Amino acid sequence: MDVPELLDLAGIFVFAVSGGLTAVRQRLDMVGMVVLAEITALGGGIVRDLVIGAVPPTAFTSVGYVLVPVAAAVLVFFWHPQVSRILPTVLLFDAAGLGLFCATGTAKALDFGLSPLHAVLLGVITAVGGGMLRDVLSGLIPSVLYDRQLYALPALLGAALVAVADVTGWHGPGVTAGAALLAFVLRVSAMRYGWRTPRPRGVRD
Amino acid sequence: MDVPELLDLAGIFVFAVSGGLTAVRQRLDMVGMVVLAEITALGGGIVRDLVIGAVPPTAFTSVGYVLVPVAAAVLVFFWHPQVSRILPTVLLFDAAGLGLFCATGTAKALDFGLSPLHAVLLGVITAVGGGMLRDVLSGLIPSVLYDRQLYALPALLGAALVAVADVTGWHGPGVTAGAALLAFVLRVSAMRYGWRTPRPRGVRD
Amino acid sequence: MDVPELLDLAGIFVFAVSGGLTAVRQRLDMVGMVVLAEITALGGGIVRDLVIGAVPPTAFTSVGYVLVPVAAAVLVFFWHPQVSRILPTVLLFDAAGLGLFCATGTAKALDFGLSPLHAVLLGVITAVGGGMLRDVLSGLIPSVLYDRQLYALPALLGAALVAVADVTGWHGPGVTAGAALLAFVLRVSAMRYGWRTPRPRGVRD
Repeated sequence: MDVPELLDLAGIFVFAVSGGLTAVRQRLDMVGMVVLAEITALGGGIVRDLVIGAVPPTAFTSVGYVLVPVAAAVLVFFWHPQVSRILPTVLLFDAAGLGLFCATGTAKALDFGLSPLHAVLLGVITAVGGGMLRDVLSGLIPSVLYDRQLYALPALLGAALVAVADVTGWHGPGVTAGAALLAFVLRVSAMRYGWRTPRPRGVRD
Repeated sequence: MDVPELLDLAGIFVFAVSGGLTAVRQRLDMVGMVVLAEITALGGGIVRDLVIGAVPPTAFTSVGYVLVPVAAAVLVFFWHPQVSRILPTVLLFDAAGLGLFCATGTAKALDFGLSPLHAVLLGVITAVGGGMLRDVLSGLIPSVLYDRQLYALPALLGAALVAVADVTGWHGPGVTAGAALLAFVLRVSAMRYGWRTPRPRGVRD
Repeated sequence: MDVPELLDLAGIFVFAVSGGLTAVRQRLDMVGMVVLAEITALGGGIVRDLVIGAVPPTAFTSVGYVLVPVAAAVLVFFWHPQVSRILPTVLLFDAAGLGLFCATGTAKALDFGLSPLHAVLLGVITAVGGGMLRDVLSGLIPSVLYDRQLYALPALLGAALVAVADVTGWHGPGVTAGAALLAFVLRVSAMRYGWRTPRPRGVRD
């Protein structure tokens, strides 16, 4: 297994954990946990693969992609934090998945010949897609549309780093991992320090 | 028309009825009924076909797939139960669709060369996908995430039966129909007897 | 740039405005506005392109498709109506997008060889898809399922006009533009005059 695939599986794992934790928070049972874990982990990647023409999507050709979320759900089943204090953990694992997927998603799109602009768009979609599905299915407004802190922007910057590096001839797993770390740190910092982008005039908190 | 296609159309019909009934329950008009019927009936199959590379999806090459949900909506328009007592009927038709689609979906994925594991995953997706779309669009939390009774598990077992039979060389419409029946009976029994899978510790009802 | 592409970009622009305005109404920030604008503008077309086998979807090969929604979001950021009076403007721009996309979506499906029936289905999906995504992600029930006025029906009639014209050998951007105008006028009239399709018996307002 090479580094890009390892990073992708890491992203699948952490997103699956965020899905499993959200299921606990919504008081779902074991099956609901597995379902939410799978959807959060694989949703964004499936859309990306369909768009770039990678059919069947990797989720349907790799055994690991299907089983890692199950393992994550099992782990969450036994070791989840107290229900009332789950949200910060969800947000942390979600940030990790955001970082990993914006990098690996952009890299894969570039490999399939998409332009840098579109590869970045796809990297962002892969990164935020799973979380959006998880939130909508749980009856929540997706984090990506919350106005309390940055969400899509860290993903955009991580994806842009991968694309810019590729354009300047600088490739490799180191770039992908570095971009993932950048996006993760930006997202966690935004949550920690309350960073926000401007609101339209006349829109109060 | 052969048996698998007949079973698929039966699944489309019953899911369309569940969509039409949900529309009545939400007090929608004729158009809303047809829209919800079409989405519930065709949603899961369209996703499955895109994933296995069957493009255009059967919904876009077969006239029956498009018109059967319209017929179902018309039937529901004239013969629906009293609004306050619709939910049990929705659940019954939804269970029938779940059973039929988890079997036909898995069979089709196997025909397209997916591994048994991935064919089962796809069968479950086809089975629960339409109901999830119906519920989310109506502002409800999808049944698949309710913790009150099994939903994805009967679909998983029906799909697994088709895949295991295929691996052991046992094919045919009889297997598909049998698996559909198994999933349907399991789902109805789970609702009737309140079967549930375990919840994580610390999560009360 | 030819007329069909111009009409499509016009549809993207107006749908993006409706998405940006909805974001303001939900009190989102700049990033949320861009995300909602992009999803509303491109969502329906991406699904349509995947279904007809146009991979990658035009959204991922054209720079304009990606940047026009950003421009729309910026315009909305600076020139949006007062928050409490945004909804009528959202509905107006949404009606324009509905009209444009039901026409261009059907035309594109016909170009790709789908039958008139299925091209119409796809035109309707392209037209209502973006708005559905916008509404669901904002925690709203999609307009297409509101029972207060027609939504999918104007789209269906516009799409049908394009398909019927094509079958009778009458092609061209004039037909597409005319169908778009028809659908738009029908939708606006339905809102203005409270047109509605029948409800099932026993369903009160």
